Amino acid sequence: MPREVVTHRDGHVYEFAPEMDPVYEAADGESLTIETIDSLNGEIQEEGDLLDAIPEEVNAATGPIAVGGASPGDVLAVEIEAVRVTEEHGRVVTTPGFGLLRDDPEIDHPATRITEVDAEGETVDFDGLDVPVEPVIGTIGVATAAGTISTLSPAEHGGNLDTTDVTAGTTLYFPVFQEGAMLAMGDSKAAMADGEMCGTGAEIGTEIDVTLSVIEDPEVALERPLLDTGDAVKTLASAETLDDAVEQANSDMVTLLAHHHGVTRTEAYLLSSLVGGLEISQVVDPQVTARNAVPSDYVSVPF
Amino acid sequence: MPREVVTHRDGHVYEFAPEMDPVYEAADGESLTIETIDSLNGEIQEEGDLLDAIPEEVNAATGPIAVGGASPGDVLAVEIEAVRVTEEHGRVVTTPGFGLLRDDPEIDHPATRITEVDAEGETVDFDGLDVPVEPVIGTIGVATAAGTISTLSPAEHGGNLDTTDVTAGTTLYFPVFQEGAMLAMGDSKAAMADGEMCGTGAEIGTEIDVTLSVIEDPEVALERPLLDTGDAVKTLASAETLDDAVEQANSDMVTLLAHHHGVTRTEAYLLSSLVGGLEISQVVDPQVTARNAVPSDYVSVPF
Repeated sequence: MPREVVTHRDGHVYEFAPEMDPVYEAADGESLTIETIDSLNGEIQEEGDLLDAIPEEVNAATGPIAVGGASPGDVLAVEIEAVRVTEEHGRVVTTPGFGLLRDDPEIDHPATRITEVDAEGETVDFDGLDVPVEPVIGTIGVATAAGTISTLSPAEHGGNLDTTDVTAGTTLYFPVFQEGAMLAMGDSKAAMADGEMCGTGAEIGTEIDVTLSVIEDPEVALERPLLDTGDAVKTLASAETLDDAVEQANSDMVTLLAHHHGVTRTEAYLLSSLVGGLEISQVVDPQVTARNAVPSDYVSVPF
Repeated sequence: MPREVVTHRDGHVYEFAPEMDPVYEAADGESLTIETIDSLNGEIQEEGDLLDAIPEEVNAATGPIAVGGASPGDVLAVEIEAVRVTEEHGRVVTTPGFGLLRDDPEIDHPATRITEVDAEGETVDFDGLDVPVEPVIGTIGVATAAGTISTLSPAEHGGNLDTTDVTAGTTLYFPVFQEGAMLAMGDSKAAMADGEMCGTGAEIGTEIDVTLSVIEDPEVALERPLLDTGDAVKTLASAETLDDAVEQANSDMVTLLAHHHGVTRTEAYLLSSLVGGLEISQVVDPQVTARNAVPSDYVSVPF
């Protein structure tokens, strides 16, 4: 049976909310291909195209997709099998008032550079430098428990996580807050640094192959996104400051380590200070995102 | 000629200051072995030994070592050739009021776990788990420009950087603020997570082989520590918050990228958002430390 393809033309959102109307209803265990448009809706196509302000509608997320059987309290597993870039170029931009060095007087805001993808799709060109194509899905999430959250921001439902691990080979786990979960994704990049300092990676359209599965009665309650790269398990936390985000990510990892080894939180905390460690996803969105990574030798996903 | 050995018994400091008396005078280009005691001065030897508070004297740094010819405005290069653990066990501890999860009511403060080193020196045991020995020099720095700074804190002179890359194979670069530079180091760990969340790694005594070189008239002025692992160049910045530390680390990396490629800060900033990225060194000291890593394909140390 060929995979169903869900495209941004079928439907896309600029907000995650408690009530979302699905554009497609997937079965538990179904494999899909999802097409996404670049985060700036194709409006930046050459270096003269400048972004004077963050658009009101940014990071179009294809979907939402209802997943059969997903109910509040369940976990939605999103296995990412492939992410393919579908444009001949990406774009990396600054915009006034946005980005880590937005107050640096020697950095132009706005500025745009077009990054051409080579014939093999293996690198993008940045001013004559080859940068490997290592696609990242920037925005991916589910319907919220309460409140409407722009696709520009991350929170417990996922959203604009801008996390380099969200790519082929990784399985992402989300808490299900609403019937059907209501998964949507977009805002892909051909390449992105941990931090996404200027406010973007090389923004680009993509095709994403995923398999969606519902986990009922998880052994450990999941309160925010979690991922497994195959080599490491990583908790993800978003907050107003990095200092708060890393505290939450570490606390969540201590919970997983205590469960995995059947030990106290004290033991788990001491172990967390020896292996893997804290990582930065992005420092530019309305909430910033950090993670605590631990190698798979020491921890597993508890569902 | 055998290497000179400088041990903590010859001299050690608990503060970096503008005026420091050398325990050894090294020639420019000299290779040395430096012996360090564990950060808790050997006072924690079994699990019943608890740390009720951070001692006033902590992180003894062996030295200082004057380096011939080093003058303010120069750069001191510290090539780390080897770090060998010299005890049969390390210790990982919590202490009241300290550490990322110090307010977690389910985590004991104080707590101590002894981590035995195996016969080959390749792993430490944590409650039956093997953790690879990957030594880290926690505190390493030079005389300050002004003001006295405890070895518990990091700043422009280095100090308690608690950075996992500070290990064999890495070259660290420090600004020289005072005649002779006055290098001191200690606070080594047999293993440590990025973040050092509980406040320590597996604290342990070490022998460190280094070669010290003075770089005069650096092409780019160095304001704070910088390191080169061979695979990546990393700027290091310490501040009261992680958010401030990553901004400084990115700004410094933009300076290096602009110099290396002969481009504007705008170009360099956009490139910094595509390759490598922000990393966390430690989140527990009086100032926290972050870094911006860029692969050696895209940047080099400018001296």
